[in-house]
Amino acid sequence: MNSTGYRVAIAGATGAVGQQMLKTLEERNFPVSELKLLSSERSAGKIVMFKGKSYTVEAAKPESFENIQIALFSAGGSVSKELAPEAVKRGAIVIDNTSAFRMDPDVPLVVPEVNEHALKLHNGIIANPNCSTIQMVAALEPLRKAYGLNKVVVSTYQAVSGAGAAAINELHDQTRAILDGTEFTPSVLPVKGDEKHYQIAYNAIPQIDKFQDNGYTFEEMKMINETKKIMELPGLPVAATCVRLPVVTGHSESVYIELGKGGAEVADLHKLFNEAPGIQLQDIPAEQIYPMPADCVGKYDVFVGRVRKDLDTDYGFHLWIVSDNLLKGAAWNSVQIAESLIKLDLV
Amino acid sequence: MNSTGYRVAIAGATGAVGQQMLKTLEERNFPVSELKLLSSERSAGKIVMFKGKSYTVEAAKPESFENIQIALFSAGGSVSKELAPEAVKRGAIVIDNTSAFRMDPDVPLVVPEVNEHALKLHNGIIANPNCSTIQMVAALEPLRKAYGLNKVVVSTYQAVSGAGAAAINELHDQTRAILDGTEFTPSVLPVKGDEKHYQIAYNAIPQIDKFQDNGYTFEEMKMINETKKIMELPGLPVAATCVRLPVVTGHSESVYIELGKGGAEVADLHKLFNEAPGIQLQDIPAEQIYPMPADCVGKYDVFVGRVRKDLDTDYGFHLWIVSDNLLKGAAWNSVQIAESLIKLDLV
Repeated sequence: MNSTGYRVAIAGATGAVGQQMLKTLEERNFPVSELKLLSSERSAGKIVMFKGKSYTVEAAKPESFENIQIALFSAGGSVSKELAPEAVKRGAIVIDNTSAFRMDPDVPLVVPEVNEHALKLHNGIIANPNCSTIQMVAALEPLRKAYGLNKVVVSTYQAVSGAGAAAINELHDQTRAILDGTEFTPSVLPVKGDEKHYQIAYNAIPQIDKFQDNGYTFEEMKMINETKKIMELPGLPVAATCVRLPVVTGHSESVYIELGKGGAEVADLHKLFNEAPGIQLQDIPAEQIYPMPADCVGKYDVFVGRVRKDLDTDYGFHLWIVSDNLLKGAAWNSVQIAESLIKLDLV
Repeated sequence: MNSTGYRVAIAGATGAVGQQMLKTLEERNFPVSELKLLSSERSAGKIVMFKGKSYTVEAAKPESFENIQIALFSAGGSVSKELAPEAVKRGAIVIDNTSAFRMDPDVPLVVPEVNEHALKLHNGIIANPNCSTIQMVAALEPLRKAYGLNKVVVSTYQAVSGAGAAAINELHDQTRAILDGTEFTPSVLPVKGDEKHYQIAYNAIPQIDKFQDNGYTFEEMKMINETKKIMELPGLPVAATCVRLPVVTGHSESVYIELGKGGAEVADLHKLFNEAPGIQLQDIPAEQIYPMPADCVGKYDVFVGRVRKDLDTDYGFHLWIVSDNLLKGAAWNSVQIAESLIKLDLV
């Protein structure tokens, strides 16, 4: 632990996740001795506050990372692909929130509650997993440890903030147009760069990210492949259906699992969740207590409820997992990785 | 077929489903020779239009059903329990849209595309299944016929109109309050008669109907038990997680199934769906074509898309099933049962 703090850069500082990263560094009182805020040319010059001090955002370029120790990237995959290696070349450790390097075998993909040990193998870049993957593996890890895990089938209920500030604005504008009976033309969701755009207000869109040749979306394949990598279970059967909802922040997941061995009751899973780091159990059906996206906003933890034993399948259980997709799903998990690096003396 | 038409009563004529029943009878040009519209004392006296003629709604009582041939009930379970037997006593066939008689072994529970033959065993009352169950079994039946069915795991994305007009108003009022930054107090959802009420606007509530002792909600148990009864597969493993969304009309379902035998590819399932009655296949990922609730409103069919083979499990497939919960999920399935009764000469 450096007594004066670390020299930190944030690439994508003006974005939805970048803003949450700054807020999280401040809330966690992360030891920052020097802060460099980077963005696209377009956003350069903006003034951003951190701990009561104002910072001018600079356009990110390779030289921006001279003398930086920890670089948090959340400016899109192409920026990461171009600039993360430049930052590493200059001695920084990159914690990358895009999908650019996640499946690279040389890059640890880390959720600290699950595989903090993988950080030790880093070669300069550490990948922050997909938002919907993080909250799921955080909840499944204590069950895997106790019982093993044989199958995962997840259906997601994802918030628009995962698609950035433009998607949030689109949801609000469309909603108001529908309430007022005026016209609107979808232009952002489901995927900004895709051909067709659909109404998100009062709707559910079963497409997040682009379709792959196998009929699954990239978001679904991210959940499938990243879960196996993070949990170090390359043979684990994982299936995902990812759906975008008219919710601003907070991803929810309906997860069916089959444990590796029998004997578990709901009370046993409750005990594991209560003891697990980063997990809050909210599961009292008789009092209508269960997690909901509206309640998780601004919180770091992953909330688990609706824990039920399957009525037919041995070792089968159902879970409802909710978390703030901008925090545990992005900014907080990235800052948490930085905290782990310090704790493990890796920076 | 009666050449002059049938004497029809609707109990619950002023409700969200009752209104759709009237609209459906009119659109289908159902042979009505006489129409009696019934409601609670509170709504009695209201004027309702049918085929350009105005009808005065009367308070429902046992004598209301004198001389009625077909009685469509959608006025809540307690009204059905009290008045359906009275209607039967007076010679009517009751098609009941509540859960009052669905699991009664003497009452056929019918989705015409699946088990029309069960109508022949009726003893006066025929039950219309739960909305989320109907659309699922309609889509699964062609697969069951061709391959058998070994497992069903469904996660639902349900619209507020399933909880009636008060829930629709609550969603709209809350949404406007949030956009305007004003206060609101939830009072209807998740369940009108339950202790606690939660925000539905921009949220997802993993509770539909009341909790049972086993931790499942009554809606989830309806899906589980009704599916087995309608498909005549008492041993079929079915699991359900039911979630309410800020969508006005149109239920969606993410369904994982395991077929009874191998050899099926996505193209085979596509062919079955294209040939199945009441099913519309919408599944061209490369063109972003898939079903969405906003597109299904006002349509009778069940829409199926996102058909994918599971990447790990033999005979495993994933489906996305969407339908208008007030039509195929309620009014249209009820009228369709009435049409089947006429076709089979049972009325």
